[in-house]
Amino acid sequence: MALPDIQANHPDIQINLTRVGVTNVKKLVEVSRGEKRPIILISTFNIFVDLPKNIKGANLSRNFEAIDEVLEEAIEAPVYEIEELCSAVARKLLDRHEYASRAEVQMQSEYIIKRKTPVTDVQCQEIVDIFADATATRENGTNLRRRIGAEVVGMTTCPCAQEIMRERASDELLRLGLSGDKIATFLRNVPMATHNQRGRGKISIEVSDGVDVSLDEIIDIIEESMSSRIFELLKRVDEASIVEDAHRRPKFVEDCVRAMAKLVVERLTNLPDDSVITIMQTNEESIHRHNAFAERVATIAELRDEI
Amino acid sequence: MALPDIQANHPDIQINLTRVGVTNVKKLVEVSRGEKRPIILISTFNIFVDLPKNIKGANLSRNFEAIDEVLEEAIEAPVYEIEELCSAVARKLLDRHEYASRAEVQMQSEYIIKRKTPVTDVQCQEIVDIFADATATRENGTNLRRRIGAEVVGMTTCPCAQEIMRERASDELLRLGLSGDKIATFLRNVPMATHNQRGRGKISIEVSDGVDVSLDEIIDIIEESMSSRIFELLKRVDEASIVEDAHRRPKFVEDCVRAMAKLVVERLTNLPDDSVITIMQTNEESIHRHNAFAERVATIAELRDEI
Amino acid sequence: MALPDIQANHPDIQINLTRVGVTNVKKLVEVSRGEKRPIILISTFNIFVDLPKNIKGANLSRNFEAIDEVLEEAIEAPVYEIEELCSAVARKLLDRHEYASRAEVQMQSEYIIKRKTPVTDVQCQEIVDIFADATATRENGTNLRRRIGAEVVGMTTCPCAQEIMRERASDELLRLGLSGDKIATFLRNVPMATHNQRGRGKISIEVSDGVDVSLDEIIDIIEESMSSRIFELLKRVDEASIVEDAHRRPKFVEDCVRAMAKLVVERLTNLPDDSVITIMQTNEESIHRHNAFAERVATIAELRDEI
Amino acid sequence: MALPDIQANHPDIQINLTRVGVTNVKKLVEVSRGEKRPIILISTFNIFVDLPKNIKGANLSRNFEAIDEVLEEAIEAPVYEIEELCSAVARKLLDRHEYASRAEVQMQSEYIIKRKTPVTDVQCQEIVDIFADATATRENGTNLRRRIGAEVVGMTTCPCAQEIMRERASDELLRLGLSGDKIATFLRNVPMATHNQRGRGKISIEVSDGVDVSLDEIIDIIEESMSSRIFELLKRVDEASIVEDAHRRPKFVEDCVRAMAKLVVERLTNLPDDSVITIMQTNEESIHRHNAFAERVATIAELRDEI
Repeated sequence: MALPDIQANHPDIQINLTRVGVTNVKKLVEVSRGEKRPIILISTFNIFVDLPKNIKGANLSRNFEAIDEVLEEAIEAPVYEIEELCSAVARKLLDRHEYASRAEVQMQSEYIIKRKTPVTDVQCQEIVDIFADATATRENGTNLRRRIGAEVVGMTTCPCAQEIMRERASDELLRLGLSGDKIATFLRNVPMATHNQRGRGKISIEVSDGVDVSLDEIIDIIEESMSSRIFELLKRVDEASIVEDAHRRPKFVEDCVRAMAKLVVERLTNLPDDSVITIMQTNEESIHRHNAFAERVATIAELRDEI
Repeated sequence: MALPDIQANHPDIQINLTRVGVTNVKKLVEVSRGEKRPIILISTFNIFVDLPKNIKGANLSRNFEAIDEVLEEAIEAPVYEIEELCSAVARKLLDRHEYASRAEVQMQSEYIIKRKTPVTDVQCQEIVDIFADATATRENGTNLRRRIGAEVVGMTTCPCAQEIMRERASDELLRLGLSGDKIATFLRNVPMATHNQRGRGKISIEVSDGVDVSLDEIIDIIEESMSSRIFELLKRVDEASIVEDAHRRPKFVEDCVRAMAKLVVERLTNLPDDSVITIMQTNEESIHRHNAFAERVATIAELRDEI
Repeated sequence: MALPDIQANHPDIQINLTRVGVTNVKKLVEVSRGEKRPIILISTFNIFVDLPKNIKGANLSRNFEAIDEVLEEAIEAPVYEIEELCSAVARKLLDRHEYASRAEVQMQSEYIIKRKTPVTDVQCQEIVDIFADATATRENGTNLRRRIGAEVVGMTTCPCAQEIMRERASDELLRLGLSGDKIATFLRNVPMATHNQRGRGKISIEVSDGVDVSLDEIIDIIEESMSSRIFELLKRVDEASIVEDAHRRPKFVEDCVRAMAKLVVERLTNLPDDSVITIMQTNEESIHRHNAFAERVATIAELRDEI
Repeated sequence: MALPDIQANHPDIQINLTRVGVTNVKKLVEVSRGEKRPIILISTFNIFVDLPKNIKGANLSRNFEAIDEVLEEAIEAPVYEIEELCSAVARKLLDRHEYASRAEVQMQSEYIIKRKTPVTDVQCQEIVDIFADATATRENGTNLRRRIGAEVVGMTTCPCAQEIMRERASDELLRLGLSGDKIATFLRNVPMATHNQRGRGKISIEVSDGVDVSLDEIIDIIEESMSSRIFELLKRVDEASIVEDAHRRPKFVEDCVRAMAKLVVERLTNLPDDSVITIMQTNEESIHRHNAFAERVATIAELRDEI
């Protein structure tokens, strides 16, 4: 029996659709990376094409099949970086959907990093959230923009409350007879208390096809821009070291975003001028139930001009 | 003691910030609406201003205070519609932050609607998710764009699987000796089985200040565009009626978006041409673990041209 | 037409069911409290009865109706405390379901508290999560057990890291020539740095029907047992005061649970010996991505014995 | 410098704690399974010990280290089933914490299954949620109870609405002149419409140490007990087959639980009488915003008696 193909019909209401597809598709992704250890992820995908006004449906029942097949192929191929995966899927989607002018693939996943504790040098695992998108458009051949990024948890300490605590310490030491010079030395060597908390830094970088962006570099920039990295495992001397370091580098939510922006400009020197950089920091304030937030969205050219 | 004001300092890294503020601020909101019953909501707010490169911090400690005070004032004033609330806050934020060129307020909430069951006419409550944003910018005085919208759960039935089931029924009735005419009558009167599921329709409408957009109308358009509304309470005759109605109006995810677009054009005739309409439909497919999704983003002028 | 009533049939597989019902039912709840301002909540309910082996279905289509009607009645009645609401629903459910031997109602909600900032005395709102359950059983008449509780966010500071920082400060001040006595005075007056974070304390109290438990008292005990309360709005002197207070009362996750247990024993003196107390503390450690957790489950009689 | 060890101090408030530990610890888990392909998971762990009243803290800073080390060892060992992992950690925790009388390890993860589409036999991936717990207690040596389970999404179709639709079809066919016999044949061969939706079945099985419980068997029982399995990828003939099958096996939420209970009794014949079985079904009703729910908690001996 030939099954009816309703999706090929003309729709009653003829309007264009910007995106038609599937969301929350979970897949086991294995990314081989040449010499490095392969990355294994459970990733969640959203996959879309646009749909012209005269076509009723993107044939989602067939579409699922196409998408899945493409994903399987992409997974088995020797893909070298995660954002390549989305590009490959987006390109193939456009091949299969002759009516579509645009295909979009979004991926997000948890990603495990191995690292050593700061003082005792014991190995532990950290989890970061990573994401990659790719959009293929059909204009003078196939054009492709892609985006890659990460969100990482670290620790931030508040400069404002710390400054007040420094003044209290200073007043007290003055009262106890310590000289101004020695008070300054003390405050330089022993950082004072303040509220501190989990911060979440996030960077996404959107580039044209063919531009390399290192995910490991992005993760490193995010962590370096907070008051301190955090660790799943900390022996007591490690904990003391983290607390002291974090209190020596107090940072407002604004400071974290600016620090990330500066490091992006300094380290990602290969980015073309039209690369779009989105940088966000969310601090889960220990003195409030709400969060503090800062964000910068700009082209790398704009950031280069400002710094 | 005069407390140090670190936020007023010049920052070490001088770059502009697009958004600085607070997220996940929960507030009890009371919106008086003239003759209608007041609306009481527990709303979650995100509130931002931009920050020029030469200022270290948006003084979040003071900023929280300003925001809160503004919110309290706005709540106590006889505000008439929910999106007015965000506009009022955005405008006042810009007044207080002389350095900012842009202020942005986002709000989301659960909103309770009372309605009657379709056959038995019993009153029940439904919950919808609503949201409103406002962005005030300082250019030739204060400009304000605002956005209001809702996400509503309804029921969608799949036309494709139903068409296959209709053919099976037709073949079987033919085999049992029923005439083609009578088969057609039967299939017209008794809708065949298909997979069906919760769908979530979402419309947001962005307009300039001063343009009225009715939230109740938006909710109505979303519900009317799915295969059927849903109800918390259904007696057995109501349930039968809903199931039958939904199976008489099978809809792809694409159909729902197109139906919403058509109704927006037909019913929101007062919208200026540059109003931006975002329409989304997500179907939580009962035959898959993933969702089907469709979206249209366009100005109302573009939609009017197409329909 | 008489509609078929499938639920009344005998099931193919005859086994008893512990719970049959509905979950995630959202309702607007208005609780009048005599002289106090009425409480308005959007609450989420789960509502169950048990089902004997010989009945096919709990007639959920009718059951929804019963539940809703009962809830509406309960809402309109002059209920005085939130946990009374669940008891009333549980009791009525048992009346309506002659085959059920047990009815269970669970409710959770966000609850808004008004309070003043610690130094500047400005009013602000805080949100806490509250919950109540009631279970009615049919044994020698109707028996009722009920549970009420809250989860509140506060601030906790780590005693361990602080002790290390105290030693560093002490060593440094000794090196700078300050006497032991004066160092002790300094450390008594100026609390040293440590990691601190959002903590979430939770208490639930299960009692027989007719025993009063004050939700406001529970919330107060939870907040008092952490290093400091937190506030949505803090002027700079308030922030300094909170940070200093929290650093004067460093608390392990275990300390918070023990402090809550002690206050429950001291303040809830009316609780019968068989009241079941569950106390939990979760600290969202600022130096880790994971949380620290402690819990005590005991009857009040057991806690009274230990303290 | 010898760091101070505050956790070893006597606490001010001396009460026992039921659980002290860490929650939301994410780890890459590799489970080798002899001849089968190794399982790779990103798992979330909660790990606790109890704490006697005279000890201030469970030394979480050291405890983290112990836990991590134990987990690493457990991961590298040739563990054969996932629940073995938790048992191994629980046992080792008890060895290390001489003061603890009880250690508890909870794990949850997403788990990927490969399967073929029902008609077209194309391979696709499905994701299920799995969990395992183990509790070790020190009484006459070490006793261990463990629990393993899964939650799987499938499709459920409502018998009640379908029965009504069958009557409508029957009435209409009678009106069109079809004989009663032929109507019965038709309704036997072509299942009528009803509402259907995603259902989530869940089984957990708690046993003493040394009793084997197959996770794959549990998953299979859950899926078989709903109206139909679901698939990420369905060609159109597969979709038709799924819809038809699901409509031939309409199931109330109660039916799903009873079907699971029956299959557990029939297939898990090796379970000792005191094994505790928890079975739950949640249907995300397409005609409501709330869910239908049923549950049975019983020992396997009780279930065997009833069936």
